[in-house]
Amino acid sequence: MEKIRLDVGYTNYDITIGQNLYDEIKRFLAGKKYSEKVLIISDSNVFPLYGEKIAKIFNEAGYIAVNYVVDAGEGAKSLAVADSIYTKAIEEHIDRKSLIIALGGGVVGDLAGFIAATYLRGVPFLQISTSLLSAVDSSVGGKVAVNHRLGKNLIGAFYQPEAVFIDTDFLKTLPKREIKTGFGEIVKYGVIMDADFIDFLEQNAEKIFDIDEELYTPIIAKSVKIKADVVSKDEREGDLRRILNFGHTVGHAVEKQTNFKVYNHGEAVAIGIIAAMKISEKLNLITNEDFIRVEKLLERLKLPIKAEGVTLEGIKRSMMSDKKTVNGKINFVLPVKIGEVIVKNDVPESVVDNAIEYVIK
Amino acid sequence: MEKIRLDVGYTNYDITIGQNLYDEIKRFLAGKKYSEKVLIISDSNVFPLYGEKIAKIFNEAGYIAVNYVVDAGEGAKSLAVADSIYTKAIEEHIDRKSLIIALGGGVVGDLAGFIAATYLRGVPFLQISTSLLSAVDSSVGGKVAVNHRLGKNLIGAFYQPEAVFIDTDFLKTLPKREIKTGFGEIVKYGVIMDADFIDFLEQNAEKIFDIDEELYTPIIAKSVKIKADVVSKDEREGDLRRILNFGHTVGHAVEKQTNFKVYNHGEAVAIGIIAAMKISEKLNLITNEDFIRVEKLLERLKLPIKAEGVTLEGIKRSMMSDKKTVNGKINFVLPVKIGEVIVKNDVPESVVDNAIEYVIK
Repeated sequence: MEKIRLDVGYTNYDITIGQNLYDEIKRFLAGKKYSEKVLIISDSNVFPLYGEKIAKIFNEAGYIAVNYVVDAGEGAKSLAVADSIYTKAIEEHIDRKSLIIALGGGVVGDLAGFIAATYLRGVPFLQISTSLLSAVDSSVGGKVAVNHRLGKNLIGAFYQPEAVFIDTDFLKTLPKREIKTGFGEIVKYGVIMDADFIDFLEQNAEKIFDIDEELYTPIIAKSVKIKADVVSKDEREGDLRRILNFGHTVGHAVEKQTNFKVYNHGEAVAIGIIAAMKISEKLNLITNEDFIRVEKLLERLKLPIKAEGVTLEGIKRSMMSDKKTVNGKINFVLPVKIGEVIVKNDVPESVVDNAIEYVIK
Repeated sequence: MEKIRLDVGYTNYDITIGQNLYDEIKRFLAGKKYSEKVLIISDSNVFPLYGEKIAKIFNEAGYIAVNYVVDAGEGAKSLAVADSIYTKAIEEHIDRKSLIIALGGGVVGDLAGFIAATYLRGVPFLQISTSLLSAVDSSVGGKVAVNHRLGKNLIGAFYQPEAVFIDTDFLKTLPKREIKTGFGEIVKYGVIMDADFIDFLEQNAEKIFDIDEELYTPIIAKSVKIKADVVSKDEREGDLRRILNFGHTVGHAVEKQTNFKVYNHGEAVAIGIIAAMKISEKLNLITNEDFIRVEKLLERLKLPIKAEGVTLEGIKRSMMSDKKTVNGKINFVLPVKIGEVIVKNDVPESVVDNAIEYVIK
């Protein structure tokens, strides 16, 4: 088991990673005084698997747990679903000191976090993360959001949870593709901050579909540590937090251009990582050797490195409307070696075009 | 002109109060670098009066101002209207460094503030307050919200603006009733924190409908100072900020029981102030003399002190579902003298009933 403390100044909390964390959740609750009712928000995939067990923990700690189960999938991240959950919360008399619990992956975490951030101007919030992608990415750092029909995550807040629990046992019920998608983000952490982590992933690439606590606790903990380190210095995405966007500039555009139906998030990030590394290579920031090293690792992890069904113009249009594009300038996060990146907003258009063309199949 | 600095630790800003503040807004903008497009949110009453003039200030400062004008009235504070404004913001490429400007009273300020707090996880926000009530209350302190069909302000955030401008010239176009409603909150400030302010209001009660900058700048500035003082010590409504809720426990219930159609906010607060003072008197916290003094002042300010169309049971039911009621306990803010209050959550039910009956006509 590993515990990582995330401190953003005005608040701090622990992210606990390991096997069978039920007792850890109980210990956490023992030190707290929330209102009697708690609201568990989960989805139709996760709730049947873990809902009862999680509710039992809260019941045993003296709480009354009520549930709101959304349909699994990105569609739940809408203002309309949020509105229904507000209604439920009001009807159940969830008050300012009631805990809202996200039990699920990224969609549930983002949605429940948005509810927690905005219901009664903010109520306490717990993340119980059940997917690898949310474990290493969205459950840490306080970004919460719902989608707008014109774009993903356009409505949201920065809102930190009281605690995050990542139980590696949950990973065992995930489909293979859901494991792979996590590695899109995991490789990102290595490239931006930690060359040794890339070495470690290279040594273990073939073992990833064998979900083993001994392997996954350090992989998740290292990813979370890197993210926590960045977020603790820059919660609200000033200059530093931007580096977490490595691979996402082109990655988001690929997701959007394919209507979020062809590539899941980590797959699109893998493609975006290749595009960003290609820009770096063209600008002579990294060697071709570094480029090939990361490309090989992503391939060994069964992640795509080229996108089908997209065009250069489509990708560029999507990048321009990204919420991180300010005053028409795109900030590219670019490696200068494995383990270190810089942010550049003046990459020549021909270099960008060339890199995008490289990742179009 | 008066400038009051509100410092909540992680950010601070000025609230500027006076006549003809256009040059002040220009000076503020001269020191800032927002993205080129700004979004002015206003309503159908205010925009025709001041929209063009305000847009001109931004144009002269090099910005492109786009507008979203909502129908005047509480109906605009909905998720549905918010959703339309998000759409407008996205279509106009309002980005993370674009300024959102609230031009209006409390409804517009709360709505625009909620948009600013949640659009792209937060964009900079300016309040230009055009009503007396918003000047002394909602424009200061960072509470933003929209309503839910089951209750007011149930969806929101704490989100501080970049600056607040309160132009006393705007007050001249307000209907008399809109002036009166401001005094519900203004009297509140005196009772909770400042006996001298109550003296001052008593000395000037008959002059209030004669909108004079010499009178209104100090009245607004004193109110804002008291609110800023409380909020700077307790932004997120812990124990201290609760005192600003004086008169609101019963006041909100009166508004709700009459479907927000009979009493406006300040009128309901006046009734709530009387109920709270009656509880204090019954508990021997204040003298009958103090009680009568405040009652007389409210009457001289043409504010109601008793409610029609409500019942004891109805008021009590509404108080129980108030978002400030935690774990079924109602926190009453009660004067111990003019200028000082305490918070009690164990007032005997018979005392509460008695006070509520006193304010039912």
